[in-house]
Amino acid sequence: MAITLGPNQYGKAENRLVTVTREGSVHTVKDLTVSTSLRGDLVDTHLTGDNANVLATDTQKNTVYAFAKQAPVGEIEDFALRLGRHFVATQEAITGARVLIDEHSWVRIPVDGRPHDHSFAKSSDEKRTTAVTVDGDRAWVVSGLRDLVVLKSTGSEFHGYPRDRYTTLKETTDRILATSVTARWRYQSLEVDWRKSFDEVRRLMLEAFAVTHSLSLQQTLYAMGRTVLEALPEIAEVRLSMPNKHHFLVDLSPFGLDNDNEVFYAADRPYGLIEGTVLRDDAEDAGLAWHTLPSF
Amino acid sequence: MAITLGPNQYGKAENRLVTVTREGSVHTVKDLTVSTSLRGDLVDTHLTGDNANVLATDTQKNTVYAFAKQAPVGEIEDFALRLGRHFVATQEAITGARVLIDEHSWVRIPVDGRPHDHSFAKSSDEKRTTAVTVDGDRAWVVSGLRDLVVLKSTGSEFHGYPRDRYTTLKETTDRILATSVTARWRYQSLEVDWRKSFDEVRRLMLEAFAVTHSLSLQQTLYAMGRTVLEALPEIAEVRLSMPNKHHFLVDLSPFGLDNDNEVFYAADRPYGLIEGTVLRDDAEDAGLAWHTLPSF
Amino acid sequence: MAITLGPNQYGKAENRLVTVTREGSVHTVKDLTVSTSLRGDLVDTHLTGDNANVLATDTQKNTVYAFAKQAPVGEIEDFALRLGRHFVATQEAITGARVLIDEHSWVRIPVDGRPHDHSFAKSSDEKRTTAVTVDGDRAWVVSGLRDLVVLKSTGSEFHGYPRDRYTTLKETTDRILATSVTARWRYQSLEVDWRKSFDEVRRLMLEAFAVTHSLSLQQTLYAMGRTVLEALPEIAEVRLSMPNKHHFLVDLSPFGLDNDNEVFYAADRPYGLIEGTVLRDDAEDAGLAWHTLPSF
Amino acid sequence: MAITLGPNQYGKAENRLVTVTREGSVHTVKDLTVSTSLRGDLVDTHLTGDNANVLATDTQKNTVYAFAKQAPVGEIEDFALRLGRHFVATQEAITGARVLIDEHSWVRIPVDGRPHDHSFAKSSDEKRTTAVTVDGDRAWVVSGLRDLVVLKSTGSEFHGYPRDRYTTLKETTDRILATSVTARWRYQSLEVDWRKSFDEVRRLMLEAFAVTHSLSLQQTLYAMGRTVLEALPEIAEVRLSMPNKHHFLVDLSPFGLDNDNEVFYAADRPYGLIEGTVLRDDAEDAGLAWHTLPSF
Repeated sequence: MAITLGPNQYGKAENRLVTVTREGSVHTVKDLTVSTSLRGDLVDTHLTGDNANVLATDTQKNTVYAFAKQAPVGEIEDFALRLGRHFVATQEAITGARVLIDEHSWVRIPVDGRPHDHSFAKSSDEKRTTAVTVDGDRAWVVSGLRDLVVLKSTGSEFHGYPRDRYTTLKETTDRILATSVTARWRYQSLEVDWRKSFDEVRRLMLEAFAVTHSLSLQQTLYAMGRTVLEALPEIAEVRLSMPNKHHFLVDLSPFGLDNDNEVFYAADRPYGLIEGTVLRDDAEDAGLAWHTLPSF
Repeated sequence: MAITLGPNQYGKAENRLVTVTREGSVHTVKDLTVSTSLRGDLVDTHLTGDNANVLATDTQKNTVYAFAKQAPVGEIEDFALRLGRHFVATQEAITGARVLIDEHSWVRIPVDGRPHDHSFAKSSDEKRTTAVTVDGDRAWVVSGLRDLVVLKSTGSEFHGYPRDRYTTLKETTDRILATSVTARWRYQSLEVDWRKSFDEVRRLMLEAFAVTHSLSLQQTLYAMGRTVLEALPEIAEVRLSMPNKHHFLVDLSPFGLDNDNEVFYAADRPYGLIEGTVLRDDAEDAGLAWHTLPSF
Repeated sequence: MAITLGPNQYGKAENRLVTVTREGSVHTVKDLTVSTSLRGDLVDTHLTGDNANVLATDTQKNTVYAFAKQAPVGEIEDFALRLGRHFVATQEAITGARVLIDEHSWVRIPVDGRPHDHSFAKSSDEKRTTAVTVDGDRAWVVSGLRDLVVLKSTGSEFHGYPRDRYTTLKETTDRILATSVTARWRYQSLEVDWRKSFDEVRRLMLEAFAVTHSLSLQQTLYAMGRTVLEALPEIAEVRLSMPNKHHFLVDLSPFGLDNDNEVFYAADRPYGLIEGTVLRDDAEDAGLAWHTLPSF
Repeated sequence: MAITLGPNQYGKAENRLVTVTREGSVHTVKDLTVSTSLRGDLVDTHLTGDNANVLATDTQKNTVYAFAKQAPVGEIEDFALRLGRHFVATQEAITGARVLIDEHSWVRIPVDGRPHDHSFAKSSDEKRTTAVTVDGDRAWVVSGLRDLVVLKSTGSEFHGYPRDRYTTLKETTDRILATSVTARWRYQSLEVDWRKSFDEVRRLMLEAFAVTHSLSLQQTLYAMGRTVLEALPEIAEVRLSMPNKHHFLVDLSPFGLDNDNEVFYAADRPYGLIEGTVLRDDAEDAGLAWHTLPSF
């Protein structure tokens, strides 16, 4: 029996990068959280502490900031590809890189009804995300969003489920359905108009959530993924993780009051957690696209 | 020497209340976090455990949900006043109540360009707040907002400060100014169009943040408060707490690059913290309006 | 009518300071979060942006780190007093200072049963705290702790409370009582063995929590404060904020099972919130000791 | 081209379960957060909303609480195995289950130097964890811990790393090394004394952290895993995720002060992130043991 080193990676997590670009007096702000990880021939540092192959995580951080100056950051997918390819191309021992970026969005503050040149407000807690994996001369892009919180006050039922000894839940034909969407979608090409594609995915998923008469959160999840795949051929697969943020009808009968789906208690924990993948059956193999991303 | 009971209060914190109201097929959602506290003759429960005067916090919770059914919730200030006055009016031993409400906002999901009837997305992390204090037959309303995150990419300077042995900061005539606004304003009347007043305060503060050429965050803070007081006679006083969310210019010179206010590192901690009050010199006495609210 | 500047302060919040001291090969670690705030003649920076009186928050940060080198940090109360007095003494325009310190604790990792010289593990999430206020040549110390989470699995009752229309809670003679203690105590002297006093307060409060047969959380709170005041003459007053972290007995009867206080659901929100002060009736006036601290 | 359902699961996340057991007047408390997920023939609920195969997440929650009554909870690995096997055994459509449990620990409050019968304090933020996967009649156990925060004030170097255009980091032969350990280890047997094994793993990892003279965090990580595998034959593999919680030496030279590794600034973000696996080369195949757990 011998003890060996298995899968490993290292990098600098959560570099907070804000860039300002100017067209005349009009400024544009980009606000990103960037994490980089490298993999390759890293046995020595683990076994003997020889760091000859270990590009310092501090250097990775510097690279993120320097790259943001050397060329426009552009879309997060392009920035992540540039960074990942740079590390693999320039470090002999490094064969793979993963770059995760979250984009935080800002909107212009309106003054006298017109958007201000250089003053902004954070628009929401929702993030646009990307996870780019580079392996040798190949690359994969999985983009996404998270913390998109949505709610339907009707148009949601839940019944027909099996009843065992431990089942007490009452069937319902009208409930609140609420969730916080984490979505990731895998592109089958790197030649994509990333911004336009993101805007379309987001719009399609929101619309599908709104118009689907839901018999289960699973059904809503599947509809959201299917709608995206039907409309956007550049996307091979969509993975969705959707907590069921329970809104319980409050029992007001002890107070002589009815409650016709009017007053709810929004619970924190526990929550249902529904996770699923929707994919094209003719999609290209995923390769390393999902490597190290949360799976289910 | 004797040991005695000093100031005290008790209640139920963070009741999560969601209500749905319907006009035909069009639903409206209200999403609140409600905390109630009571004060009065509460010596016995502390000294002997006699609870004859202690309206259970569970009962306070039930009251919040029942009240949401018995009449439309309306604006948070009105709902808080109803709740606070109820406790003081109905419990002989209870002489005072404080009700804190945070309102979370939702926007309709657009479908084919039109707002959907019953599907919503969380619009941001920002909260509209109120803190209502009832004491006997008097009442005070302090409304506010928090987690309004704003940023100016220019129009902010900082210089002319004293230099002592420990001063290393370089003066600047152009920096990013960013903060997360917590504001509270005291009304000098209870006859207010709360929603309209809130919308005006928020608009005025955002505009003042945008148009003030800032020589210090204090100056911006004061301008935001002053603008509100000049426009809205119903408001006696504004208190603002504004962390200076530092965005440090990254030194790219080791890489042979300049950085003309283009690339910034957004720091987490430590942060500056600027807190101040702007008030009318002829304002009515604040009474208990600020009682138990964070002070500075 | 004129608009004026009211109460205000500014400073640097949450400076993360770690110091290492050595006696031979044995190291000692001190881990603090330090926040400083200054007050004084600060009208100009608010009204005109003239910063001649504004010692930069960056300078305040530097002072924290430099002071940690110039003399041993010692107990947090002493370090806070040194810092606060320095700012007031050296800045003409600054008349008052508040210094808040949280201390995070570490324990030595045992190796072969003996504590290691220079390797440590974080011992818990609990913090020892101090809030020092300096005003001119006077000073006040309020020390405390927070995030001390305690639970009794029996020895807690709750009954005898008033029942109104909205009361549904069942009386109980045996429940779980759990809380997260935030305590602050005011010293009536600055000549105190801070460490010893802290250790005693903590021990006494824990014992009082354990041995008090509780008829209400208020009774437990009062007993905890009273025990401290009876034992420690240097303390004038204790303020306690104790959320009632509800543990609800799960109804297992639908499954044909009883539940004799065996299986509980630990709820997040809402929670009861019990806050109270225990004080000596002959205590010195509190002066500015509690200024800007959360009140109730 | 057709669109299909890919990998999916659903369940109830973060059930907060506290149990009390009694031996005479001595109580013991167990405090768990339990998450269950099921997988199997779940196509219909996604495509048509037919829930005939969907054991409600509410039922899963009830099962957790009922099981805690029907037999002693025991070690978290055993409890998770019981739950997972129950779902697979009793639901025809369900072929697999994953059960995640976090255990929160409490210690008895000492009163007069003796541990109290029924009063407890939360001992730390660290959690003992398990992730049990059941698939048909097979099962895998991966246990672990997280939020174990450790620090060495010396005995850590970092040098010999490659220098590229973006490298500015200075080499060091003496630095603070601090991390928050997340460890998971895979058992190659289900016949294990779980508690004893956990205690051993934790002790061994802490000792390895303490005694390893570190040339890189990777070296420390590997030493921690190797030490466990050398001592405990029941463990096939250890995965460790260790953020490098940077403590930067503060430059005090502007104040005429040196800083001989005495005063540090503890940074929040960004942080290095070191992740690696240590395994036996003759270990059994991992099967589904790591399925859905974070990978690297």
